[in-house]
Amino acid sequence: MTLIDAGSSASSPPTDRGRLKLVVAYDGTDFHGFAVQREVRTVGGVLTDALVAATGLPPEALHLVCAGRTDAGVHARGQVVTVDVPDGDDEALRRALNGMTAPEVVVRDVARVPADFDARHSARWRRYRYTIVNSAEPDPFLARYAWWVPLPLDLSLLRLGADPFVGEHDFAAFCRRAGSATTVRRVLDSCWHPPDGEVLRYEIRAKAFCWQMVRAIVGTLVDVGTGRRRPGDMLAVLRSGDRAQAPRLAPAHGLCLWDVGYDAPSR
Amino acid sequence: MTLIDAGSSASSPPTDRGRLKLVVAYDGTDFHGFAVQREVRTVGGVLTDALVAATGLPPEALHLVCAGRTDAGVHARGQVVTVDVPDGDDEALRRALNGMTAPEVVVRDVARVPADFDARHSARWRRYRYTIVNSAEPDPFLARYAWWVPLPLDLSLLRLGADPFVGEHDFAAFCRRAGSATTVRRVLDSCWHPPDGEVLRYEIRAKAFCWQMVRAIVGTLVDVGTGRRRPGDMLAVLRSGDRAQAPRLAPAHGLCLWDVGYDAPSR
Repeated sequence: MTLIDAGSSASSPPTDRGRLKLVVAYDGTDFHGFAVQREVRTVGGVLTDALVAATGLPPEALHLVCAGRTDAGVHARGQVVTVDVPDGDDEALRRALNGMTAPEVVVRDVARVPADFDARHSARWRRYRYTIVNSAEPDPFLARYAWWVPLPLDLSLLRLGADPFVGEHDFAAFCRRAGSATTVRRVLDSCWHPPDGEVLRYEIRAKAFCWQMVRAIVGTLVDVGTGRRRPGDMLAVLRSGDRAQAPRLAPAHGLCLWDVGYDAPSR
Repeated sequence: MTLIDAGSSASSPPTDRGRLKLVVAYDGTDFHGFAVQREVRTVGGVLTDALVAATGLPPEALHLVCAGRTDAGVHARGQVVTVDVPDGDDEALRRALNGMTAPEVVVRDVARVPADFDARHSARWRRYRYTIVNSAEPDPFLARYAWWVPLPLDLSLLRLGADPFVGEHDFAAFCRRAGSATTVRRVLDSCWHPPDGEVLRYEIRAKAFCWQMVRAIVGTLVDVGTGRRRPGDMLAVLRSGDRAQAPRLAPAHGLCLWDVGYDAPSR
């Protein structure tokens, strides 16, 4: 029924289209990331298919823009997506999309935004959360969403190691290069939450991130937490700009795009 | 390496076998329940295969006994299993099993028990936990382990509805019949935990359970929580012994065998 409601708005001509902002949560386990790619299943592809079914627009008319192009296996709680769709009952459209994609992909919220609002370029910051289970044995119920680290981690060392990342740095040592683009980024927060039993959560917020930057930072911090590396070395590794100094990459499945910040008027 | 350690103990003849008690956690999503069955993947089957590989015993020599024969899709945090295996380094055996079955199936603990101890018949009680997410939209990260109920549930009604199940009753109205066996059971606890945000947890403990009993109780209680049924009707439904009076079955994926109690000397 909601599908038909949403579909009826699809008869509006493209000239009546306006920009919609979607807040999307997904379990990234069975996706090859967000960005639409031919031949592989992606979050953007699944959302596009659902939008095609709900609006009647052809796929080539739907250009999804996301705040963070999460990699294969990475999850999201508050991914933000903008797309131009016909004016209509947006809440019915949201329900229609969830009817096709939930619970793997859930559109948590929809809102009309101005035509110059863009999920990617209007974002002020992105926040990622990385979850670790630090226990002698893995936990079957956390295995999809947390990295299991059996060696004991020292939270004080983890916290000392996390501090130096705050501020503006060249993160060349902590990212996979994508062309010749700058790797200078400003990190606003880098902290470990109080532990919840055996579950440790690291949160990092920045205006933008380099490719695989959070996973490289967490991989290195885990070596600090086990005592294999010293927290005092982090600044030197940053300054080296040398990828070989921070080669350990935390697995994708512990990472989650937590939320994205925009200026108040656009929210 | 642990595999080889464990395998070396397999050279002991069967006469040196003793009884081992395993505490096992598993994500039941991709299993057709615990009990070994030909042609389908079961938790007992996967554990038997791992024991064969680790001990060198043939599968027909390994008779797994479990405390609760969980159905397809049901999870366990503290399933208890007994099996006769050669004397040896049990901790190495445990690690070898986990090397083959984790994180989907994790042997959390192993202990030698007397030959007359039996995971099923020695159990004093079983405790199950049922998890519900009561929210307008599903949560991708809880979808495997909780039943999503979008209609608002009234916790006071849920609690009033849960009380009458405590004590000895004929649960014929709340179970799928399996032959002519008695359906009288003694329930020791039946309660809802304080809510954790949108997550509601029901716990029920009994000496033993009938087939699908917890799922039938939870299905009926959800109708009480939404106001479709009155908590005061629960006793009448119990007394009716009529399966048609409680036809709603909560889905398997919200259910978890939480733990099993034994007399102190056997623990």
